[in-house]
Amino acid sequence: MVDETALFSLTYGLYLIGSKDGDKNVGCVVNTLQQVTNDPLQVSVTLNKENATTAAIQKSGRFTAAVLAETAPMLQIGTFGFYSSKDRDKFENYKTLFDAAEHPYVAEQVVARLSARVVNQLDVGTHIIFVGEVEEAERLLSEKPMTYAYYHEVKGGKTPPKASSYIAQQ
Amino acid sequence: MVDETALFSLTYGLYLIGSKDGDKNVGCVVNTLQQVTNDPLQVSVTLNKENATTAAIQKSGRFTAAVLAETAPMLQIGTFGFYSSKDRDKFENYKTLFDAAEHPYVAEQVVARLSARVVNQLDVGTHIIFVGEVEEAERLLSEKPMTYAYYHEVKGGKTPPKASSYIAQQ
Repeated sequence: MVDETALFSLTYGLYLIGSKDGDKNVGCVVNTLQQVTNDPLQVSVTLNKENATTAAIQKSGRFTAAVLAETAPMLQIGTFGFYSSKDRDKFENYKTLFDAAEHPYVAEQVVARLSARVVNQLDVGTHIIFVGEVEEAERLLSEKPMTYAYYHEVKGGKTPPKASSYIAQQ
Repeated sequence: MVDETALFSLTYGLYLIGSKDGDKNVGCVVNTLQQVTNDPLQVSVTLNKENATTAAIQKSGRFTAAVLAETAPMLQIGTFGFYSSKDRDKFENYKTLFDAAEHPYVAEQVVARLSARVVNQLDVGTHIIFVGEVEEAERLLSEKPMTYAYYHEVKGGKTPPKASSYIAQQ
């Protein structure tokens, strides 16, 4: 017996992932960032294979992550979650800074940010788990981080179809 | 520049993982469970290679996960987090049920539980990321899930040294 709604009780944050496709800034929003080891400091992020950001990370071998603050507006989340970087520059309306590898990250309504170099990846079907060694990490704001539960329950946010946790007709 | 404390802003839940080592019930507490795909329904969990639970999952090819409720007492979390299943039966003082594969899960102070069959794994150094296809999933309580932030900030909980997110002298 599998009640898929049991999975709704798993806890996540909300993160803007950034990468570079040639000269183009690409990015998306995910709930799947986590720390996997401390020594060396490594994080994982799980992304849909159809995302433009996934293809960019595979080419550049790097990604950034920005931890959204609870105060982040829905428009900012929606810009990164419900459009494709193929069609628009998602960063253009937000304060964007660049790491040492010239990969972009949003520095607005963001509690902390990190940059990682991909050292491993695992194909899990519709998605890929990227494991990256953290090369830069910085706190930016002392706001509370946005949780996925807060996004759904307080902000009334939806889950995009390409998300790991998407369930049809939810 | 790497400020490891930037990683403290990542959001997690708290989960009891269970498996079977022969006739023995083994388990531990983690913050690293997440859903990675929806079709098929797959979750990942990252465990330290030195955990007795890790060895058991590699032998049996299965694990259970129980989503702790915010009301779970520190003793319950500490029993699973600060001891080894080599030394004691962590389940003995808690209501324990078994899935179809006879793997144990705690059914006390638990919001939901699931059972997964390992279909993939990735060695990330000190830890292993297990990917499992969900074969059972069930809601048990309508309490709020315990977040890792709540465990630290409200309950005053510590991070065990073998956790993915452990940082010395925190």
